[in-house]
Amino acid sequence: MSNSFGHLFRISTWGESHGGGVGVVIDGCPPCIPIWEEDIQLELDRRSPGQSECVTPRKESDTCEILSGVFEGQTLGSPIAILVRNKDQRPSSYSEMKDKYRPSHADFTYDAKYGTRAWHGGGRASARETIGRVAAAAIAKKVLTHLYPGIEILAWVDSIKDIKADVDPGNITMETIESNIVRTGDLSAVDSMIELIKETRSDGNSVGGVVECVVRNAPAGLGNPVFGKLEASLAQAMLSIPATKGFEIGSGFQGTQ
Amino acid sequence: MSNSFGHLFRISTWGESHGGGVGVVIDGCPPCIPIWEEDIQLELDRRSPGQSECVTPRKESDTCEILSGVFEGQTLGSPIAILVRNKDQRPSSYSEMKDKYRPSHADFTYDAKYGTRAWHGGGRASARETIGRVAAAAIAKKVLTHLYPGIEILAWVDSIKDIKADVDPGNITMETIESNIVRTGDLSAVDSMIELIKETRSDGNSVGGVVECVVRNAPAGLGNPVFGKLEASLAQAMLSIPATKGFEIGSGFQGTQ
Amino acid sequence: MSNSFGHLFRISTWGESHGGGVGVVIDGCPPCIPIWEEDIQLELDRRSPGQSECVTPRKESDTCEILSGVFEGQTLGSPIAILVRNKDQRPSSYSEMKDKYRPSHADFTYDAKYGTRAWHGGGRASARETIGRVAAAAIAKKVLTHLYPGIEILAWVDSIKDIKADVDPGNITMETIESNIVRTGDLSAVDSMIELIKETRSDGNSVGGVVECVVRNAPAGLGNPVFGKLEASLAQAMLSIPATKGFEIGSGFQGTQ
Amino acid sequence: MSNSFGHLFRISTWGESHGGGVGVVIDGCPPCIPIWEEDIQLELDRRSPGQSECVTPRKESDTCEILSGVFEGQTLGSPIAILVRNKDQRPSSYSEMKDKYRPSHADFTYDAKYGTRAWHGGGRASARETIGRVAAAAIAKKVLTHLYPGIEILAWVDSIKDIKADVDPGNITMETIESNIVRTGDLSAVDSMIELIKETRSDGNSVGGVVECVVRNAPAGLGNPVFGKLEASLAQAMLSIPATKGFEIGSGFQGTQ
Repeated sequence: MSNSFGHLFRISTWGESHGGGVGVVIDGCPPCIPIWEEDIQLELDRRSPGQSECVTPRKESDTCEILSGVFEGQTLGSPIAILVRNKDQRPSSYSEMKDKYRPSHADFTYDAKYGTRAWHGGGRASARETIGRVAAAAIAKKVLTHLYPGIEILAWVDSIKDIKADVDPGNITMETIESNIVRTGDLSAVDSMIELIKETRSDGNSVGGVVECVVRNAPAGLGNPVFGKLEASLAQAMLSIPATKGFEIGSGFQGTQ
Repeated sequence: MSNSFGHLFRISTWGESHGGGVGVVIDGCPPCIPIWEEDIQLELDRRSPGQSECVTPRKESDTCEILSGVFEGQTLGSPIAILVRNKDQRPSSYSEMKDKYRPSHADFTYDAKYGTRAWHGGGRASARETIGRVAAAAIAKKVLTHLYPGIEILAWVDSIKDIKADVDPGNITMETIESNIVRTGDLSAVDSMIELIKETRSDGNSVGGVVECVVRNAPAGLGNPVFGKLEASLAQAMLSIPATKGFEIGSGFQGTQ
Repeated sequence: MSNSFGHLFRISTWGESHGGGVGVVIDGCPPCIPIWEEDIQLELDRRSPGQSECVTPRKESDTCEILSGVFEGQTLGSPIAILVRNKDQRPSSYSEMKDKYRPSHADFTYDAKYGTRAWHGGGRASARETIGRVAAAAIAKKVLTHLYPGIEILAWVDSIKDIKADVDPGNITMETIESNIVRTGDLSAVDSMIELIKETRSDGNSVGGVVECVVRNAPAGLGNPVFGKLEASLAQAMLSIPATKGFEIGSGFQGTQ
Repeated sequence: MSNSFGHLFRISTWGESHGGGVGVVIDGCPPCIPIWEEDIQLELDRRSPGQSECVTPRKESDTCEILSGVFEGQTLGSPIAILVRNKDQRPSSYSEMKDKYRPSHADFTYDAKYGTRAWHGGGRASARETIGRVAAAAIAKKVLTHLYPGIEILAWVDSIKDIKADVDPGNITMETIESNIVRTGDLSAVDSMIELIKETRSDGNSVGGVVECVVRNAPAGLGNPVFGKLEASLAQAMLSIPATKGFEIGSGFQGTQ
């Protein structure tokens, strides 16, 4: 059950990076919410690999298909199954991994836990798993907008290594974020961020960063006491993304100062 | 979450009778269990429509595809997604249903609950939903056999209307059950059962029956107290099958006598 | 988690027949529902042992205490914890059970499953476990009546062994049921039912029966597809009561005729 | 269900700060684990208010009672219910709160969400709710030690406002932590931390800090992919504690540098 998240609106992702595909089943989506595959595709395109010089070069069009739960452009209230086929499968590129564990990957842990692993790729630990989340989130966004008109959820790159964006969370817009390939909110930082990423990549390395998010016009009382507090659920969600190591809300650690 | 069943081995079915397909995601299947699509297909063929003169004439080959969770013929421990495409979709046959509720079907209830429904078929209330269950059960059977060698689960038609099969649950075999198209355990009752079904159908009607099941060599302690008692879980499972109206275990109602 | 039932209104029972007490925690009860301990006590008194010559002679006053979730006579929306202390504990009466399994009880199964058991009583398999359910049901009834004014749920003894009550489910009233100690709906059957019970008891035996239930003015669309169908949830609930062996809804098995 | 945490070992806390008491039900604890009330009391005493000049002066002895699930000093495998009565209830101290919302408390949010609240205390948002967690954790620790001998879990105060402890997570011991009332791991920081707390309190204020935790000899493969990753579950658990605003694991945010 650890592949599911949420209760009333429950998403269950499935799929390995190099199997038949990846996807998600959403159980509990309210009925009569307008959804088209285009709505989902739009968000999948935003996450897709190969879209710029800053991201993984893996070639995947990541085209989604809604298999159930939507009828004549509206949700039915039944489970919504979404499928994205894997295409860029090159088992040969991974043959070395059959016998070796990649450092800092989940290869060893999966073997220790399950006694087996999908060695010709990252399996469930691949970032491709997030495709199911993005597809589900596209629908969640539709539901939220339907229930709470005016709600707005924006996220942007706040820092890459030591380059910190200077952003006013009260004024940042989707347009600014989408206007640059690193999706930061500070246009003056774009060039140096891109340069840093490219430089690091040319050294055969990668570089970390921090994402910041603001939610506007959220209704009072979202989330539930005690273990389902909004901040507890968000923390769980964020830390379940591969390679995420920290989470702050409100004043965060700074609040202790 | 009402489209899921089970906890450690949790199945989640999805799909309407006339959408892109039906399927299931199994979360919690142990790793290293040998599974091939053939194992699943075998059970799907046993449930498939159009296989004999006794069942619905809908033409569906119901071919399954394992999309995830199985690698080189073995389970990975990750979610197993199985897809069966719908093929025999004839929306036109159902156009009358857009404005009318079929008696004794779930049409009205879905509309009352959700304010919408997949009117060109039975939607989630269609018996096609059970395809996901059968596929999951094919895997569950593999797991059970793996964990408890010698376990045997047999089910057969015990009665159709007033024709009662005379079966000794201690001796009935899969061969006997599979040898006849009504899948009863009493070969002397086969002809009259088939005749009754055909007669009833020719009157534009259908007829009910009772299925009996025996489990052999089950380990002690299956199930969990209190609400997860084996008999409570079985009752829930059986009553969740469309049109099922009763369940007995052990001596059943007869035990009060 | 098998000691919990329900999702949005989730009850979790706890307690052995001979420990500190039995009880229930209800999570998800809506706020602002009027509840007093008296409302719960009323239903506990209806189930209490020793109330008539027909039931177990164990002496237990079964007094409930609401520990949380209710403030100034109204639910808060937080978990409602209810405690009933055990009083009539006579470990000595059970000392023989330390080494012997009672036939047809769960003694052996608990030992097989857990490698231990609360041998000086029925442990979790005792019918005392249902105290938590009754307390939770008293609150559930309040919630239902609040949400659906006019809803009425009546249950009565329909048969004891071969004595069948003649009851019209459309007209039966709570008054009739409560007017007799076997709580049947057919006053002409009361004497023979009582006589049968007393006779059987004097033989050192007990006798089974069937309970029938009618729900009036239920709203359309209660329950959820697929595994959460109202009838599936009811079947699970009923078969989770100790010694229950069958469940029918609507026409039941008779419908196959 | 938001008052529960965990699946196989599921804890459900209940209780308001000023009702009959607070407590927890643990479902899924393995059988045959030795547990005495003393084991739990030891941990409750460590969290108890009024134990030093650094913590809330509320007077509560917080004595626990195990109501079920433990028999002759061993767990039964059935739900373990633990009750701690509230004693220091002074509704009069809170009478002003009937009409006013305390700033930065959950008062307003509860009212917005539920239309009611337990105004003569913090209700479920009170830190008293954590009593149930501490009691459950005392048992969890017993289970962990039983399953994984050698496992060690240590937590200490790493900083208070700008006073940072200098601790080597590889060598810190329980003895050091328990030797001082702020429970920091750096003895040279104790005095200044205590002084800062007292000073802040004398200003009618409170001060934040950071807790650090190390786990030694944890087995490989704890937690579950994807949403049940160990770090995701820990993040959820930590952020569900009142007033917690951040979580880091491993190198944390520093890792982006």
